[in-house]
Amino acid sequence: MLMVCSGDPTIYERFWRQVGDKTTIIIPGWQSLSYFSDGSNICWFLETEFAREVVRLHKVVGNAVTEGRHIVVGTGSSQLILAALYALSSPDAAEPISVVSAAPYYSSYPSMADYQKSGLYKWAGDAENFDKEGPYIELVTSPNNPDGHRRKAMVNRSQGQFIHDLAYYWPQYTPISSPSDHDLTLFTVSKTTGHAGMRIGWAIVKDKEVAKKMTKFIEISTIGVSKDSQLRAAKVLKAVSDSCEQENSQDGESFFTHSYNIMAQRWKQLRAVVEAGDLFTLPQFSPAFCTFFGQETEPQPAFIWLKCEGDIEDCENLLREHKIVARSGRHFGASPKYVRISMLDTDETFIQLIDRLSAIQQGK
Amino acid sequence: MLMVCSGDPTIYERFWRQVGDKTTIIIPGWQSLSYFSDGSNICWFLETEFAREVVRLHKVVGNAVTEGRHIVVGTGSSQLILAALYALSSPDAAEPISVVSAAPYYSSYPSMADYQKSGLYKWAGDAENFDKEGPYIELVTSPNNPDGHRRKAMVNRSQGQFIHDLAYYWPQYTPISSPSDHDLTLFTVSKTTGHAGMRIGWAIVKDKEVAKKMTKFIEISTIGVSKDSQLRAAKVLKAVSDSCEQENSQDGESFFTHSYNIMAQRWKQLRAVVEAGDLFTLPQFSPAFCTFFGQETEPQPAFIWLKCEGDIEDCENLLREHKIVARSGRHFGASPKYVRISMLDTDETFIQLIDRLSAIQQGK
Repeated sequence: MLMVCSGDPTIYERFWRQVGDKTTIIIPGWQSLSYFSDGSNICWFLETEFAREVVRLHKVVGNAVTEGRHIVVGTGSSQLILAALYALSSPDAAEPISVVSAAPYYSSYPSMADYQKSGLYKWAGDAENFDKEGPYIELVTSPNNPDGHRRKAMVNRSQGQFIHDLAYYWPQYTPISSPSDHDLTLFTVSKTTGHAGMRIGWAIVKDKEVAKKMTKFIEISTIGVSKDSQLRAAKVLKAVSDSCEQENSQDGESFFTHSYNIMAQRWKQLRAVVEAGDLFTLPQFSPAFCTFFGQETEPQPAFIWLKCEGDIEDCENLLREHKIVARSGRHFGASPKYVRISMLDTDETFIQLIDRLSAIQQGK
Repeated sequence: MLMVCSGDPTIYERFWRQVGDKTTIIIPGWQSLSYFSDGSNICWFLETEFAREVVRLHKVVGNAVTEGRHIVVGTGSSQLILAALYALSSPDAAEPISVVSAAPYYSSYPSMADYQKSGLYKWAGDAENFDKEGPYIELVTSPNNPDGHRRKAMVNRSQGQFIHDLAYYWPQYTPISSPSDHDLTLFTVSKTTGHAGMRIGWAIVKDKEVAKKMTKFIEISTIGVSKDSQLRAAKVLKAVSDSCEQENSQDGESFFTHSYNIMAQRWKQLRAVVEAGDLFTLPQFSPAFCTFFGQETEPQPAFIWLKCEGDIEDCENLLREHKIVARSGRHFGASPKYVRISMLDTDETFIQLIDRLSAIQQGK
């Protein structure tokens, strides 16, 4: 069985091996004993070095405004989504605030909103069908997981609050058009550099009280975030920024040039296989000017949002018969004619995926 | 102001500096990219090396049975308390399950149980006053935070479930009488070795389904636990076990001998100051045989549970006037005549604390 149902980002391992010792971290046994990183910061468990490298990377890439904002670090962006739901809801409200996202939405949003049976917030489904009066929170994922499309908020009402999940707003996945400038924006090291095992994400937050409440959430639920991972993430993000700044003066390519090229190659192979038959279709994207690369680039999503055409109603089943384990569209609030397949797996897995898709197309 | 209100365990820094390179960890940039540690384990994000060192340390110390149990790693034991509440409650119950603990209880339990306004579980206060029929969860902290006493479950009803928080069941804090053997037991690196910044705790769980539900909780809330910290924790726990096994054959003292001696020295100084006047009193403890040290030892809690005697009704206020910031007994479900003060701070802070307490006693 070929497991391509999760989004485990092992694709960049080769790059990090080539980089060598630059991103090796050494932590002596007596370091990072304390709970506290910087008691004067709203987010008192945020490592200064990590915050500095986050700000620097956004400046280098041009994908987010950080001036005058608060940074809150989380145990992956998952914890920050929950912290944001907590911060944007009110303990005194008569009923839980509705949480919506436009289908197809990230498959974990419904369970994240509902697993605690919280009286603060409650999953209310597809943003497009949301017609309830009153306050609500909309999760806006752009580029979207699973389908890779650029998105803006769907529900436009006065009492809306927004969580912008920009995990994939990096140059290897999509053209960078301008620095994002929302009230609450989330990023994660997992998708930026592929270091999913670190469990490090960050929020860029305009409102001080929201940043305080998010920090409180993380304090109550995990008393902070691994310092070891924050220090390691700082080192990795520094290497990414350094590689971008040195690209023209040295022979090495930047992390984003490297990762853009792999993604381009994979999407080319994928499109060739899919277009060779009429069983499957892929979403269509338009190229756009990327301010980071200084040229037009193609969107190259981290996931394939594959549709089975014709009379095949259950794409997950069809693929499973051919030993490909993908995630059904049903989990994303969409039709089972769709599946989501990871594009970020190892070379070996990707080659097998292409071979098997090709075999299916050829009716083998 | 002398901040001794949190339990930041910086006390062991000297030991870890002396140990030198043995606990230095080196992590290359290409390591720990994946979300997964061991897909065949119920807790799929548990690093094998970390689990191995946990089992070994419990064997060396003799403070917990691990055979035939499941280990679940968490972002500190805080996350595991929440995961346990989630795992022991039922989504189909007519009302939230009651969560109790005997006063004085750990000051974070009420907010941990209630901050999400969960429909699954709900804080129901002091276990001693709990008289509601039906299922309940009792948090049993032993030795107890804040007062250092050994504890057993307080409420004895058929529908009770128990979370044993044994963060302080280590030889420097209390005599080890026998290996703990409960359904669900929690430990944390923070209090064992002082590495609070790692945010690593572990649960020892008898029931497979409970371990699965706890793992699911951590999957939804943080998609696992920092691998970097797990690897570092493995190295630190290994050094502790090694130091115990080598103590007799080498000149170095074991971690627990070192930490026991510091705690003994601090408690001696503290008792001398408190007993020099009649303003304050301390809890009284009986020595007991410690199977780890092979001799009788004194309980030496990580916190001072200080009581103001006479007509002083607010001990926190009195101390604050003398520039000591402690945490009032009110937060622990107890009288404001009590405060909790950390014994695990740096030498400098502890010496200042002793000096200021001494000055108060002398009416300065």
